[in-house]
Amino acid sequence: MRIVRYALDGSTGAGVVDATGGGDVVRAAETGEVVARLDEVRLLAPCEPRTIVCVGSNYACQVAEKGRPHPVEPALFLKAPNAVVGPEEPVLHPREVRRLEYEGELAVVIGRTARDVPEDDALRYVYGLTCANDVTADDWRGDGQWTRAKSADTFCPLGPWIETDLGERGYAGRSLTTSIGDRTVQRSDTGQMIFSVPRILAHVTRWITLRPGDVVLTGSPAGVGPMAPGDRVTVEIDGIGRLTNPVALRT
Amino acid sequence: MRIVRYALDGSTGAGVVDATGGGDVVRAAETGEVVARLDEVRLLAPCEPRTIVCVGSNYACQVAEKGRPHPVEPALFLKAPNAVVGPEEPVLHPREVRRLEYEGELAVVIGRTARDVPEDDALRYVYGLTCANDVTADDWRGDGQWTRAKSADTFCPLGPWIETDLGERGYAGRSLTTSIGDRTVQRSDTGQMIFSVPRILAHVTRWITLRPGDVVLTGSPAGVGPMAPGDRVTVEIDGIGRLTNPVALRT
Repeated sequence: MRIVRYALDGSTGAGVVDATGGGDVVRAAETGEVVARLDEVRLLAPCEPRTIVCVGSNYACQVAEKGRPHPVEPALFLKAPNAVVGPEEPVLHPREVRRLEYEGELAVVIGRTARDVPEDDALRYVYGLTCANDVTADDWRGDGQWTRAKSADTFCPLGPWIETDLGERGYAGRSLTTSIGDRTVQRSDTGQMIFSVPRILAHVTRWITLRPGDVVLTGSPAGVGPMAPGDRVTVEIDGIGRLTNPVALRT
Repeated sequence: MRIVRYALDGSTGAGVVDATGGGDVVRAAETGEVVARLDEVRLLAPCEPRTIVCVGSNYACQVAEKGRPHPVEPALFLKAPNAVVGPEEPVLHPREVRRLEYEGELAVVIGRTARDVPEDDALRYVYGLTCANDVTADDWRGDGQWTRAKSADTFCPLGPWIETDLGERGYAGRSLTTSIGDRTVQRSDTGQMIFSVPRILAHVTRWITLRPGDVVLTGSPAGVGPMAPGDRVTVEIDGIGRLTNPVALRT
């Protein structure tokens, strides 16, 4: 199922996107009744995480591009929940930042309280997958703990929905592309991950309990680069969805 | 007023602590009716922050102790909400961590959505003050972004309540002590802060929007040191309250 949160006529709701002969519609999560055509609602970020844990340097192609050694365990950082925005919401480029970067990523949404879960059982705690842009103000990494660099408002686009039907291949071997307009700037697949999703979840939840709706960002492949006001940035993951956000100057 | 969240007879509530001739009582926040004596309820963390922003190296005495230069702007890091615990809840000492440190701090609780607030207006966005222990696994700072070091479960005790009546002196010039058992290990006052609370709030909210219930930790004075399982650690701030937590081994 494709799980959404949406706004329509001034109110918000939780729903499911359903394909019909007449195109995709949104059904209310509780009643199953059709609310509107998909193109009539405004999609919000599909979940409201409290804790967002991210893994850096997790794609073999990205580590090779940077000439770094493979990490020996997942390198974690946080994004704060104020950073979350939904599809088509603008990413706000601070005027004082010279280099604001896109990082297309697969996002794992947690479905059950996950505390110290073993690796071979970790996928049972996953609700579904969505797309993320781990927006980063490169200038601000020098702050030390990357707080402004990773968690300024609008620096965590998520969406367009949570895909809960992962089929046999699950999270693995899915192509991931990031585009600016019609120019592809990242092209990889999730098979390039150095640490698998189960390994990451086991590592994180050994010490950090995750709750339903919390999100784990699993790292970005080679090709990270700058965005500018006026750009439209799209992260697309095969079988999951397409997440597009415009970039605007924050005054 | 002293604002609490509490547990009693298997349910939880929001209340106000009131002094009476017969001792402190908890009144229900909504009705004003007496719920129980204060010593009959179990206090929870007094708020449920989504975003917790912390300032490092913010006490002149601590910076002098470490022989570091004064920072030129607030050095920020995050704690994740899974870390929050209330009074008397155990701080869990991971078995593999050799040095787990206490850091007694003044915590500012946000009362109104705060986005890009000017310094001279910032205190209007403060709901009240409470005590915090910014528990830190020193071994894990080497991870890079301090994620496990600062945000493992139980690493953010808050409480015992939010004091909203700050009188004329507000947050300034209040003594702050941290004790292990009856041994005082930190003794300073909030006048030692390098960046004032309004300056910190202006800096943070320039990029990171804070919402009601979010928390800003304002740094720890000199004397940071290790805790061990079996210790009882108390952070006390003059006119605010006393926050005590036992330390237990996490298995």
